[in-house]
This record gives sequence, structure tokens and C-alpha cells, in this order.
Amino acid sequence: MANLLTPPQPTMPWQDRPADCTRPIWRYDANPILTPADVPFANSVFNSAVTPFGDGYAGVFRCDNRALQMDIFVGFSDDGINWEIGSDPIKFEGVEGAITKKEYRYDPRVVYIEDRYYISWCNGYHGPTIGLGYTFDFKTFYQLENMFIPFNRNGVLFPRKIGENYAVLSRPSDNGHTPFGDIYYSESPDLTYWGKHRFVMGTDGAWQSTKIGPGPCPLETDEGWLLFYHGVITTCNGFVYRMGAALLDIEEPWKVIARGSHYLIGPEEDYERTGDVPNVFFPCGVITDGPSGRIAIYYGGADTVVGIAFTDVDSTLDYIWKHNMV
Amino acid sequence: MANLLTPPQPTMPWQDRPADCTRPIWRYDANPILTPADVPFANSVFNSAVTPFGDGYAGVFRCDNRALQMDIFVGFSDDGINWEIGSDPIKFEGVEGAITKKEYRYDPRVVYIEDRYYISWCNGYHGPTIGLGYTFDFKTFYQLENMFIPFNRNGVLFPRKIGENYAVLSRPSDNGHTPFGDIYYSESPDLTYWGKHRFVMGTDGAWQSTKIGPGPCPLETDEGWLLFYHGVITTCNGFVYRMGAALLDIEEPWKVIARGSHYLIGPEEDYERTGDVPNVFFPCGVITDGPSGRIAIYYGGADTVVGIAFTDVDSTLDYIWKHNMV
Amino acid sequence: MANLLTPPQPTMPWQDRPADCTRPIWRYDANPILTPADVPFANSVFNSAVTPFGDGYAGVFRCDNRALQMDIFVGFSDDGINWEIGSDPIKFEGVEGAITKKEYRYDPRVVYIEDRYYISWCNGYHGPTIGLGYTFDFKTFYQLENMFIPFNRNGVLFPRKIGENYAVLSRPSDNGHTPFGDIYYSESPDLTYWGKHRFVMGTDGAWQSTKIGPGPCPLETDEGWLLFYHGVITTCNGFVYRMGAALLDIEEPWKVIARGSHYLIGPEEDYERTGDVPNVFFPCGVITDGPSGRIAIYYGGADTVVGIAFTDVDSTLDYIWKHNMV
Amino acid sequence: MANLLTPPQPTMPWQDRPADCTRPIWRYDANPILTPADVPFANSVFNSAVTPFGDGYAGVFRCDNRALQMDIFVGFSDDGINWEIGSDPIKFEGVEGAITKKEYRYDPRVVYIEDRYYISWCNGYHGPTIGLGYTFDFKTFYQLENMFIPFNRNGVLFPRKIGENYAVLSRPSDNGHTPFGDIYYSESPDLTYWGKHRFVMGTDGAWQSTKIGPGPCPLETDEGWLLFYHGVITTCNGFVYRMGAALLDIEEPWKVIARGSHYLIGPEEDYERTGDVPNVFFPCGVITDGPSGRIAIYYGGADTVVGIAFTDVDSTLDYIWKHNMV
Amino acid sequence: MANLLTPPQPTMPWQDRPADCTRPIWRYDANPILTPADVPFANSVFNSAVTPFGDGYAGVFRCDNRALQMDIFVGFSDDGINWEIGSDPIKFEGVEGAITKKEYRYDPRVVYIEDRYYISWCNGYHGPTIGLGYTFDFKTFYQLENMFIPFNRNGVLFPRKIGENYAVLSRPSDNGHTPFGDIYYSESPDLTYWGKHRFVMGTDGAWQSTKIGPGPCPLETDEGWLLFYHGVITTCNGFVYRMGAALLDIEEPWKVIARGSHYLIGPEEDYERTGDVPNVFFPCGVITDGPSGRIAIYYGGADTVVGIAFTDVDSTLDYIWKHNMV
Amino acid sequence: MANLLTPPQPTMPWQDRPADCTRPIWRYDANPILTPADVPFANSVFNSAVTPFGDGYAGVFRCDNRALQMDIFVGFSDDGINWEIGSDPIKFEGVEGAITKKEYRYDPRVVYIEDRYYISWCNGYHGPTIGLGYTFDFKTFYQLENMFIPFNRNGVLFPRKIGENYAVLSRPSDNGHTPFGDIYYSESPDLTYWGKHRFVMGTDGAWQSTKIGPGPCPLETDEGWLLFYHGVITTCNGFVYRMGAALLDIEEPWKVIARGSHYLIGPEEDYERTGDVPNVFFPCGVITDGPSGRIAIYYGGADTVVGIAFTDVDSTLDYIWKHNMV
Repeated sequence: MANLLTPPQPTMPWQDRPADCTRPIWRYDANPILTPADVPFANSVFNSAVTPFGDGYAGVFRCDNRALQMDIFVGFSDDGINWEIGSDPIKFEGVEGAITKKEYRYDPRVVYIEDRYYISWCNGYHGPTIGLGYTFDFKTFYQLENMFIPFNRNGVLFPRKIGENYAVLSRPSDNGHTPFGDIYYSESPDLTYWGKHRFVMGTDGAWQSTKIGPGPCPLETDEGWLLFYHGVITTCNGFVYRMGAALLDIEEPWKVIARGSHYLIGPEEDYERTGDVPNVFFPCGVITDGPSGRIAIYYGGADTVVGIAFTDVDSTLDYIWKHNMV
Repeated sequence: MANLLTPPQPTMPWQDRPADCTRPIWRYDANPILTPADVPFANSVFNSAVTPFGDGYAGVFRCDNRALQMDIFVGFSDDGINWEIGSDPIKFEGVEGAITKKEYRYDPRVVYIEDRYYISWCNGYHGPTIGLGYTFDFKTFYQLENMFIPFNRNGVLFPRKIGENYAVLSRPSDNGHTPFGDIYYSESPDLTYWGKHRFVMGTDGAWQSTKIGPGPCPLETDEGWLLFYHGVITTCNGFVYRMGAALLDIEEPWKVIARGSHYLIGPEEDYERTGDVPNVFFPCGVITDGPSGRIAIYYGGADTVVGIAFTDVDSTLDYIWKHNMV
Repeated sequence: MANLLTPPQPTMPWQDRPADCTRPIWRYDANPILTPADVPFANSVFNSAVTPFGDGYAGVFRCDNRALQMDIFVGFSDDGINWEIGSDPIKFEGVEGAITKKEYRYDPRVVYIEDRYYISWCNGYHGPTIGLGYTFDFKTFYQLENMFIPFNRNGVLFPRKIGENYAVLSRPSDNGHTPFGDIYYSESPDLTYWGKHRFVMGTDGAWQSTKIGPGPCPLETDEGWLLFYHGVITTCNGFVYRMGAALLDIEEPWKVIARGSHYLIGPEEDYERTGDVPNVFFPCGVITDGPSGRIAIYYGGADTVVGIAFTDVDSTLDYIWKHNMV
Repeated sequence: MANLLTPPQPTMPWQDRPADCTRPIWRYDANPILTPADVPFANSVFNSAVTPFGDGYAGVFRCDNRALQMDIFVGFSDDGINWEIGSDPIKFEGVEGAITKKEYRYDPRVVYIEDRYYISWCNGYHGPTIGLGYTFDFKTFYQLENMFIPFNRNGVLFPRKIGENYAVLSRPSDNGHTPFGDIYYSESPDLTYWGKHRFVMGTDGAWQSTKIGPGPCPLETDEGWLLFYHGVITTCNGFVYRMGAALLDIEEPWKVIARGSHYLIGPEEDYERTGDVPNVFFPCGVITDGPSGRIAIYYGGADTVVGIAFTDVDSTLDYIWKHNMV
Repeated sequence: MANLLTPPQPTMPWQDRPADCTRPIWRYDANPILTPADVPFANSVFNSAVTPFGDGYAGVFRCDNRALQMDIFVGFSDDGINWEIGSDPIKFEGVEGAITKKEYRYDPRVVYIEDRYYISWCNGYHGPTIGLGYTFDFKTFYQLENMFIPFNRNGVLFPRKIGENYAVLSRPSDNGHTPFGDIYYSESPDLTYWGKHRFVMGTDGAWQSTKIGPGPCPLETDEGWLLFYHGVITTCNGFVYRMGAALLDIEEPWKVIARGSHYLIGPEEDYERTGDVPNVFFPCGVITDGPSGRIAIYYGGADTVVGIAFTDVDSTLDYIWKHNMV
Repeated sequence: MANLLTPPQPTMPWQDRPADCTRPIWRYDANPILTPADVPFANSVFNSAVTPFGDGYAGVFRCDNRALQMDIFVGFSDDGINWEIGSDPIKFEGVEGAITKKEYRYDPRVVYIEDRYYISWCNGYHGPTIGLGYTFDFKTFYQLENMFIPFNRNGVLFPRKIGENYAVLSRPSDNGHTPFGDIYYSESPDLTYWGKHRFVMGTDGAWQSTKIGPGPCPLETDEGWLLFYHGVITTCNGFVYRMGAALLDIEEPWKVIARGSHYLIGPEEDYERTGDVPNVFFPCGVITDGPSGRIAIYYGGADTVVGIAFTDVDSTLDYIWKHNMV
């Protein structure tokens, strides 16, 4: 039995595993929890991140409007399931000359470190790179320097420093529908300058043969960092996005302890099979309850809606170990 | 309040905006109105054009048979909703040596000018070009010279002369699944020789970033020509077709007065999301009632079925002006 | 009236043509007969082959597991509709030095010749080629030499020798999502060495313009070998797979007697329209009852499920002759 | 013996066929006649057209400057071999509202019709199309409407009206390094409006398998219009441009009387093999002496220099007939 | 010191290694030995094979005519350097129903086995495959069955049976400018039926990263079969073809004993750097003198000319062993 | 008259501008100075960097061996023209855990900062990134952390700190023959962690339309940093690399003061036109003499040889200002 070393969040959204479910992960039975109909101006709401906040929850949501302009919005929820999404994109104040000019912003992640909530996202700056900001209250937002030169599309901070440095996992890319992609690790003493770049893991067979990238922020367990990640295969009719998981070393997270050869979950439901981009299951957010080991993953379906899938730390770790390819 | 300067057609198909609909355009609630099951020989029926005719309506329908041979067929309807489609493709008589040999014919448009109904379509002649013909009675059809050298896929006549010339909007293309496309304007004194080609507008952000092309024939309003057009984005899983609108100068229609940065409507329903080509909303036909400002747009869904969407001139113009990008 | 010269199998799965069906082929009304939910470890079960066996039926099923490793499994059924699929991939014993090392295996076909059941499949050996094996009892399996050098993806044996040689139809390919493909015929005196390669037929218009390949094993009729085959078109949103049919000369099967310009059936149902690869109808297996002329075709839907479609020899042959393009 | 029905030009550049040359066409022995070193500002000078003018010759030359801006320049010569190229691009005055705004201009052709010299070229107007202008004196230039909607790259006028109309051969294209291209014929009563588009001939085997396009203006002979054209093959290392010839019907020039399966000449010399675009022999200009049947072809070498090749009407026609593929 | 186990041919073409040459292979100092100027009808002469014959030499030459039709021609030579090439393509008589219909023929190889000269070549039959024929006298030629289904471009017979079977090395391909390619081994008891296909070796780093294929027929040495092969890299300006070498097991030639990580020779001279396809060094023929260990390799330069390069068995084997990557 | 603020180096290689040369830059008349014949093991020697060192010069040279393994080697020279290249690749000692494992190394730059010589290069680490090292004596070399996550191909340090930080220009790329590329600026307080990434300038018309990247290290002048850079255009026969120049702000070098629309020099000579990659002029190194304003640029020709081109600061700056596109 593994221990999930995250704070308690006993009120987190949760449903027990259905009786007939033999899989390590299962969907919320009222999925999708957010659709374009819930956001008046939106073409789609998906690939979003959430966090406990106050008595409830806050989140940063990717909403593409009906011009398909990609931007990120704050949302609040009492229960993590019913969300109120703001009607204006997040507005950042730049810190020490950081660039806040907006080209586009998408696929946010949120993580609490020390005293504040950090938000990272894919930020348009002469190509996609990783934008970084923080907030204390989800009302006022501060933007730091972009983490990298383009091109990079998924930057996910660890929830605490590794050694003396902040740390991030990311997926370098190109400037289009990138047909390749591996996961790298980088460090920073100050969140401005980044270095000590390390390769973590790359594409592998079949469902993760085209590209892989980090999903929600890694979860600390007593066996290592639990990383949920997306993997992509190229069929004759396009990309299919699924979710797998790996276990990274606690102190040297660029070392992979275990990694599942089998995906955990992929597009099967109508709202994952069809939409603006068919066959996409894209995890971006996570809420956990450490003591119970419960995990709720927030994911985008078909680039159109938001869904939740549930698992617990043992179900997932058992599955990784059972199918471990390291 | 804008005025729609088209003839009255008080019996046109119509449903009022649903109470909970905040969008500028809404679907007929019994969509799709035509499916392959309605046309015994057909693989699909879509991208078709209609017009008031006599006491009812006539139309030219794209039906691909089960060899996927693309051709156009006459249809008649009392109410514009229930259609009887002919079992034989339209047969044209050539006018003054015009070429009537058929390679393939698809995506027709119909417009009444002066004393007859003109039909234009994508016509195979050593590559796709714009075929042109006319009929007085939808029984006998006459074919004129092709309007252009290949390659061109969407040619849409204005419903009256501009100055002393006939005028057309079209979308030059290549010989495949063209990944580019802008809208141009051309004139002709005699419908045989065409010139004075003018660029009208090109691709822009996001939903209209790959190509754009004219939809049904432009509608005259007292603010300008109202043009519905299709816009295409390339996702990692293929093209998505949506519909936007623009306002063109009455006397110099190659000048864009206003153009919406936001699309009006796109694929959302099952019959638009799935089919032979998923995620296609492709407008080809229109019926209007000038005095009331009502507009019914006929469109192809997923290259498989025909649907209708309703709007009125004010809803659409307000939306264009609100999101005007000119 | 044509005669289907296959053995009697009066208990074969069957449903009469629905009253309102004017098409040459119709679906089993409880399709799909196999879905991933029926195979605990599977991501998908599709493109599979079946045969009468003992008092019931046996089959070889393509099941991709949740690592998307492609492999083939035995299944048994009393009625040809309800199947029990084995949990371990087929294990072959190599005959005379034949290579049994497995890279991947998919899209099996099964045919009974003389005294045993032959299985052919797409076999990974430094590229896709045609693997060949046999069994007497669906318990012990023997593997022969691969039939060809890579690259080949569909190898289908005739159910008896042609002249003094075994014979096969196949579709040479490349090492990716091959955008071309024709059907060829080859012979062998011993199932080890193959030669006398003959072109049979190639791509043609529209629905079969990208590639064609043999489906289930050819059926002998008194008019020729009835071959069901798949045809593929490339739309702007990917490949669409449909099924057509042709009639080949009995003694010289590389000569095409008749071939339908129209497809017989294509993806129309949800389970064919959506799935891991949308818009795929891929026939691999067949069960027939010679005296009645009844034919049940087993096909993969959207690379995710298995379905059955019914026809009879006259319905199909009439359709081929009606639309004959030879 | 064929007669070349062009005016006498006894002083035209000429060299007799070398004694050991068995081919229908031979190079000027001091080729290239123009190199970048001859045009101070130029990166390259190539694909240019010439005409008798006054006591000597005038021409329109494509010179790309060292920003690679493509433009056309006037040149004068006493002997057709030594040229003085102007230092400023040609400046056109627009006729009746014709668009003279310049994006880029290249690959000019020149032809004398009735009372003036017409110049056509590839003209940038939201994509490549055919620009058209004229001059009486090569000092003042007038620009007419573009002949076509984009995309078109080679427009070549006939040197007299066909019937009552002006006529042009052209090669529709796409907006990039077009990998396809056939030759079409179009007519105009007034040089503004164009129609009656006819397919003339398309790609064929090997050296002309990727695209073909008209070269210099067609030459009238008593056997038909003699058309020199370029043909392109795609090797694994790019395009190779060669020159072939065909004979078109005098009254209905879209009808091909004869066409050589063999090219006349291709890149062989260093200045054709290497340069900005290796392996290009691209004919754009021609000077002839009708009575003697002599023909001098001006061509671009490797998109970098200008060369001359000589032939006579009999050598070329014999070669076409000998290798006629019609 | 290795022994070259091929027959004596003391009069073979030869030049000693230049004094300053430190490389394992050196060019004939009067290269190229054949150019288009030597073959009146030819666009190019290259990729050809030769053999001792009578008191001199015979060869099969690829000559593309000026329509770029690819075909093979007989040539004779007294010294192996000065060649007389026939003006008519080789005409084959079909053996036992073998297909002799010609689409195109190129890149021949010649090998003497037992009592006759076998010729293999890339043969167009609904795609490129390996044609096979033989002659006793280079006057009368017999054609056998094609060795494989398409697609295959380089088939090279061993000069004697391996065990009881004929044996061939080949490079399966696709139907275009194949961007992949490995070397496979196949056997036949009768030169009609082929099987026991074995992978021999695949692409590797850098110069041989795109594809590799067998060159001239393998040479027997007491260390193994010496195979010269071509390797291709894809630069941003196209393919570059070079030549490397490997040593295969005598009895089981699909087993690689040694293989050089370094190429032996590549395009460096003008006639290899420029031509119809720049940067091609493509070996097809070989003449050897067993006792002295001398080897003359005939290769195509830039798809335009024929050159010779010399080496000896020790120079080459030393180089392979020094850079052995097995 | 501008002042070149670099140290005096009066013995630097130099030739005065030829009398007839009107261009801003001219070639050394004995180019190329290094060819494969000068480096026994090499396939090619190109894209290399040099620096004054002791009484003479040192350099870091890209030599690809005959396996096409890309690596960097030290060279020494008395005069900057005649070079002695080491036979073993540079061996680095890792500083504080920096990764020294070698995949491949190419296109080095050298710059002296404060007390040592820094070397940056394209370094293979799960994709191309920028490697960084230093030496005091060109005997012992130390390697630091890679500067970036892949993918990046050209990293060029400024010769002094900008403000308090080290600074670099680089060109992010993808993992292949990248068809895009702009120049970015980044800073580091410690050469380990990098941030404050700023866009400097991007592709523009024609010769620099595909990608641009920094060449040798920027040169300080009293008008700004003088940056030589490469620009690439895509022709139908591949990439052509030329060299242009820009002037960057001294204190904020991401601000472009002036930039030439015209290139300075491109491939014109045989050794630039032909080679392993035709049509490449690629600048990597520079030697200057501040007081005289003289500049010698070391560049790779056709990915095969090294050449020198001369200019002086006024010739270049005048040219930039004359053609300034800012």
C-alpha cells in the first residue's frame, strides 16, 4: 500500500469504483461537468486545472471563444463539480519587466507552492512557450518571465522545490501540430532563469508512439512522484490522445522508477470520441485527498468539454507496477 | 435596424428563435431535413442550394451515389422542408459550343437574376472549375462556358448586376484538399468572358485560418451585401468547417465593410460532428423573406446530410458589427 | 441465379433482409457482436476471422490490449454470434526453421484447405509482411515461413489449390499508413516458396481511389470467385474504408470478370462512424451456407468492434453485374 | 519542309548547327549571354523575353535583386546578344482602373500584336496571377487588368487574334512550388474579360510528368502553331526543367496536332546544372526569321543566367513528328 | 590477408592506387567512361552492370532516352573501359508464360551462375519489382517470372546456390522516391518461387540513415561474402548516395559478420556532384580477378554517367574490420 | 564612419577589396582554405569558428568523418589561413555534474569573455540543443550545462556581459530539417540557468523567408552590435543559405536598430554551389581588427569546405543602412 503525501481534502469530488469496473480508473457518472453550453461566449471549455481554495475550489479554465481565440479564465466551485466560470480572461500584472502581452494562452496547470498558487500555461510569444504566473487569491494575478524560448507546449511545476530549486516538467515541441515530443526536467533557483535540463522519458510503443507530455502536477507518494501524462498515437485518421502514468524518483525526478506500458484510460465515451478534435482524453488538473489516497483527474474531452475521472493511489500504482516497462 | 432588400417570401420555412438561445442563429428542430435514407441511390446528400419557385420551392442537390460519383439533381418542395429529389442527374444543353461533358459536379448554388435561375457549381474539367448554367423551369437546363480556368471550387453569383456587369465571388484552389483559399470578385459583361478580378478577403485567425469561401449567394441589405461564408481550421485531426458572415460594399463588393471575427455557427450536433467527413457545417443555399428579414440557410452536415439554420438580418448584422474585425 | 459452391452450414448466423431494405447487404440487428467490454484486457476487438468448427464455430480475433500491442487470439462460439475469446495470444510452433519471433500480429484471415485450418495475418518482421500458420484443432498452432518480403498487409488464401498450387491474394504496401494499394495474386507449390505474381486489380474512382485490399477468403461460385474487398478514399479528414465486391475467373483468378463500381456497404452506424479510427468498415471473415447462398460477413467497425453483415450470393452478384465496371 | 510564317528578321542572332551535332537544337557557343555580373544590383538574371525593336532588339528581363525581390526590367541590344539592362524596374501606368500595385513580377513574355508590344508576366496579387501590359516604345508602359484570378504562373499571348478574339495559353497553379500543371487556352474580345477556357494538353511520362507550361509565344507555321514548352520531372533531389515542343491547330489552338514524347533540350551545361535552382532550362523568349526558318530561343539557366539556343523550324518539326505521341 | 574466391580475370581494367591515396578505394583517372555523348539517343547512361564474356566483356546498361524512358541495353567491350552500346533495348523471350510486357526497366545487375548469365533489374509491373532473365550469348535473352510482388527496386543474385537454392538480396520499397529501405535475403529452388525471406541488415547512422540496398553481386571470399551496398542520407537538399561494404556469412548470408560504419566512397567529383540527380554514387557492376584480389566497381554518377572505382579485397576488408559496427 | 570596438589584431588575415568589386564583401582569393583533402579522416570540414590565440590563431572545427559522425576538433594556425586540425575530437571535462555524454556535436562558435574562450555548439542530447564549454588554452576543455531544452541549433554568446548577465542569441528549431526559425535573446547570471527570453527578429521576404539564425558572435560597434546571420529560402530544389547583417541595440540587444533587406553574400562559387549540400554559405566564425575596422568571416561552403570572406565595418554598416528594413 502506497501513501499519497498530499494534504487532506476530505470534501473532494468522489465516486467509488463501480462494482463491475475492473480498471484502475473510472469516470464521474455525470460527465461531462462543463460543456460549451455552460459558458455563454465559448466555443469550447476543456484542458483545465483546478485546486482546493478556501472552503471550496478554484480553477483556471481554457475557454476558446467563438472566434477560437484561446484564453484562460478563473472559475470557482463549492464542490469541484459545479463551476462558475468568469466572463473575462485572466489579467496578469507583469513582475519586473515580464512580458504580459497576449498572443494566446491555453492548457493551464495550477499548483500550490509554499504560499501561493502558481499557474503555468502554453503562452504565445512568437511561438508557443510556457507562461508562468501566480496568485494568492484568484483575484489578482502576477506574471513572471516565460520559462523557455519557444517552442514548448506543456510546462508543469512540481508542488515543492527539488533540492533548493523550483522544478518543472515540460514537452518541447515545434510550431505546429507537433508530431514528436518527450518529457524533460528543468530547474530554477528563482523562477526566472532555468537550466540543468534533463531528459526524463520519451515516446514508446503504440499508444504513446507519437508524443508524450506531462499532465497535471506530479503527486508526491512514498514510492516516488506519481506523474499522469498524455500519450499520442497517429492513426490514418489523426491523433488519439490517452493517459498513462509513471513514477519518478523523489530527489532526482528525471529518473524514472516505473512506467506503465499500458495506458490508464483513453477516449471511449461520446464526448471524448467526437467534438472539435475527435478522440482526445487530455488530463490537466488534479485534486487529491492524501490520507484516503483518492485522486480526481480533470481532463479535456475531444477539445470540447471537461470531464472528471477517479482513481486512488493504489489502483494506479498497482497498475503501473503490473505493466512496468522500466 | 437593417433592411433585407430581397423579395417577400412569407411562406418560407421558419421557426422562431428558441427562448433560451442567445446566439445569432439556430437550427431547425427537425434537422436533418434530408439524409441518405431519403435518396435511394445516394451515399450522401448535402451542400445543396434552393430557391422559391412557383408556389413552392425548387433546389439543386448534391447527391453522391454509392460509387461516390458526385453529381447534381433537381428537387422540388411545397414547404422548403420536405423535398422530392429527382433520380437522374441534371442534364444540360450546351449554349454556343459550351462544354457539357461531365467529369463530376458538386456543391451547387442557385440564384435568380432578371428572368431565370442561374446555377453554378464545382465542375470537373481537367481539374475543378466553376460550371455555370441556367433554367427557366427546372426542367430544361442550359450550360454556359465554365467561368474560370481550373482550379476553383466555389463560385457564387450576385443576384443582380453590379454596375453593368454580372458579378461573382469565388475561391481559387488547387487540385486536392486545398489547404489555402481566399475570396475573390470577378465581373463579366456577358457571362462568358470574365475579368476585373479583385481580392475581397482572405484567411484570418483560428477558425478561418486555413481557407474561406463564399456560401450562398449574397443578400442585399441597406447596409451592404450580406455574405455568409465558410471558414476552415486545420486541427491535428483534420479540417473543421464553420460559417461566418461579412458585409460587402453595395457598389464595389470587393470592399469589405464589416466582417465578424467570430463564427456564426459550426458543427455541434451529431449529424454535423460525424459522417463521411466529420465536423463540417457547409452553407450553400438560402431562402429569405425581405420584409421580415428572415433568413433560412441550407447547409451540408458532415458531407452526409442537409440541415437548415435560421437567423434574421438584424441578429446577424448585430453580431458582425459587435465582432467586426475590419 | 448463381450457385454458391461452398459447403452447407445450415446453422450459420442469419437474419432475413429487412422489409424496407433495398440494398444488397444488411447489418445484424444486434451489432456490434463484440466490443472491448467483452474482452477484459482489450482496448479494441475488430478485424477478425471465423470458420465453422466442430458443432459450432471458431475464430481468430484481433485484440489490441491496453498497451495497443496488436495480437491474435482464438475464440469459440456455438452460434457464431456469442463468442468466448481466449485471454492469451495464439502461440505458434515453428515448422522447419520458420521464424516465430513476434513483433506484432493483426488482421487475421482463416480458411479451411483440405485437412486443416490455415491462418494468415499481417506479421511484423522488420516491417509488415504476411504470416502464415495452420491448426487442426484451434489448440495447437504451427507457423510456416512468411509468405513475402515486407511490405504487405493483407494476405488471403484461396480455399483450394488453383491448378496444382496454393494461391493467395495480397496487398503490397509500405511501412506506414500506406496511401496506395492494389490486389495481386501469387502461387506456391509448397506454401514456402511463392511466385508467378500477377496483378489482379487496382484502385479506381472515388470510394476506392486510395487503396484496395482483399477481405475474407474468396468464395467459389459457378460464375467465378466472389471476392469481397475493402476500398479506401482519402477525405480532408482522413481515410474512409468501405466494402465492395468483384468476380474473379475460377481457373485464372488474376482475371477480373466483373467488379462493382459501387460499394456494397460502408460506415453508417455509430459504431462504424466513431471509435479509435473513425469511418472504417473492414471485412475480414465470412461464414456461408452453400445450398442457400447465404453469406455472413464479419467486419471491424472503426477499428474498435466486430459486427456482422448479411447478404446472399444473388443479391451481391446482381449488384456487381448491375454496376459492373469491367 | 515547313514554312515559318513570322516576319523576316535577317539580322537575328544566329550560329549554324555545329558539324557534330545530331540534335534538333544547339546552344550559342558563348553562353551564357547574361549573368549576375552583368547587372550590378542583381542576384540573378534569367527567364526573360525579347523582341525585334527598331534597328535592334528590346527585351523584358527578370532580375531578382539581392533582396531576392523579383521584378522586370527593360533591356536594349543592337545584336540580340549584348544587352544593356535598365537599373529601374518597369513602371506601368494603369489603364481604366487596372491595379498597378506591385507585390512581385517575374517570368515575362513579350509579343507584338497589331501595333504594340504586349508584355505578360507572373504578377503577385494576393497570389501569383498573370499580369498584362503593353508599350509602343519600351519607354512608357501601360498595365491592363490581370488576366485571371490567382493562381497562374505562365501566361503567353498568341501573336495575333484567333478568330475575333485575343488568345492566351497559361498554366494554372497553386500558391507554392506547384507539383502539378497543365496548359490551357483562353480567349478575350477586349483583353479585359477572359473566357472560353479550353484544356490543351497535360502532363505525360517522365520528363514532363510533374507539370508543363507554355514557353515563348507560339510561332505560326503552315503546319500549325509551334509551341515550345517547359516540362518538369520530380527526382529525389528536386525538380528538373527541360524544353519540349508541340504543334497546335491554327484555328482551334486547343487542339494538339502533334507533340514530342522526347524533350528537345535540357540542362547539361554547368550554368544550367548549378545555380540558385539547379537543373533548370526555362524558355521565355524567342526571335525568329520567317523566310529562313531560323529560331533563337532565350532561356533561363538554373534560375541564375540567360542563354540562347538555336534551331530551325524544320529541325524542330521533324523531331516532333518523329517522336509524335498524339 | 583475405582471398578473393572469384575466377581469374588477369586482363581486367585496373590502375594501381595513386601514391598519395590513403583511402580504401580510388577512381579510374579517365572517369567517366561513359557519358550521354557516347550514346546518341540517350539522356543519360548510368547504373549499369558488366561481366567478363569471351575474350572481353559484356554488360547491361541503363540508358534513359530523351523521353526519359528507362530501359536496358547490351554493350560489349574489349577492355572493360571502352564500350559499344547497342541502339535497341534488350528484347526478352518469355519462358513458360512469364510476363515480358515492358513498362520500364532500370538498374540492371549481371551474374554468371553455372552455365549462363543472369540479369536482374528493376522491372515495372504495376509498380517496381525485380525482373529476372538470362542469356548464354548476350544475343538471345530469356525472361523468367518476376521475383517478387511490387514494390522492390534492387534484386541481386548470389553467384552460386546457397545450399540447394538460388539466393537473392533485395531492397523492398514503395512506389515513389522511397524514404526507407533495408536489405533482405530470399531463396528459391527453381528461380520461379521464392521464400524463406530473412532480414539481413537495415539503415543505420548518418550516411546510411534513409535507406540501404545491395550493389553489385556479392563476392565470395574466405572470410565471407563481400557485399558492396549503397547508403542514402536525406539532407535539406535531397538524397546523397554513397557506397559502403559488409561481410556476410558464407552459408547463412543473412547473418552479417562485419559491416563498416564508414562509407567507402561517395560523390566528390563534378560528374558525381552534378547531373540529373546531384550527389549520387550508385554501384551496380563489378569485375574481379580472384588471384590478385583486384576489384573494379562500375557505378552511376549523378544518374547521368558511368564511372569505375578500384579497390582490392584486402583494402576493403581491412577498412570494414577497422570500422566494424557489428 | 563607424568604429569597430573590438581589440586590435593587426596580423589578421586580410585582402583589400578587388578593384572591380562593388559589393560590401569579397572572398579570399585562394578559397577554400580547408577542404576534406586537408583532414585525412574527414568527409567534410565546414561551419567552423576561430579566434586569435597567443601569437596566432586557434579554432574549433566541425569535421564530419566518413561515417558522417559530426564532431568538433581543435585547430591552430599562424596566419589564420593555413590550419592544422587535430585528429581527435575535443574531449570535455564536465563541470559540476554537467552532462558530457556525446551524441553528436556540430556548428561551433567561439568567443573570448573576460578570461577564457567559450565554445558553444549544437549538441545532441535527446535532440539538438546548445552545448557550452570553455578553455583557457585550447588543450583542456570544460563543459557546462546545456543552455536549453531541445530543440535549438545555433547558440552564439555575446563577447561581454549585457548588464550583469551573460547573453546569447539562438535559433529554436525542431528535430529535423527545420523549415522555420527566428532569432531569440536569452540571459543568464551564471551560465547555468537561462531566462528573460526575448524575440529579436524573424523571417522576412525571399532569401530569409524560411529561417534565420545567428552567425559568428556579435561585434560591438559604436552604432550597436553588428550581427551577421544566415537566412534561408526554400526553392523547388531545396534550401539556399545566404548571409545578411543587422545592428542590435548595445544595452538591449533584442531591439533591432537596423537590418538589411538585402543579403550581403550568398553561394556563387563552385565550392559553395556544389558539395554535400548544394547552395550553402554558412558563417560561423569571425576575426576582426578593431582599429582598422577589418572583418574576416569564416564560413562553410556547401557543407563541405571552409572559406573566408572579407569586409570592413563601414562597408557592411553602409549596406545595412542603405537597405534598412526596420
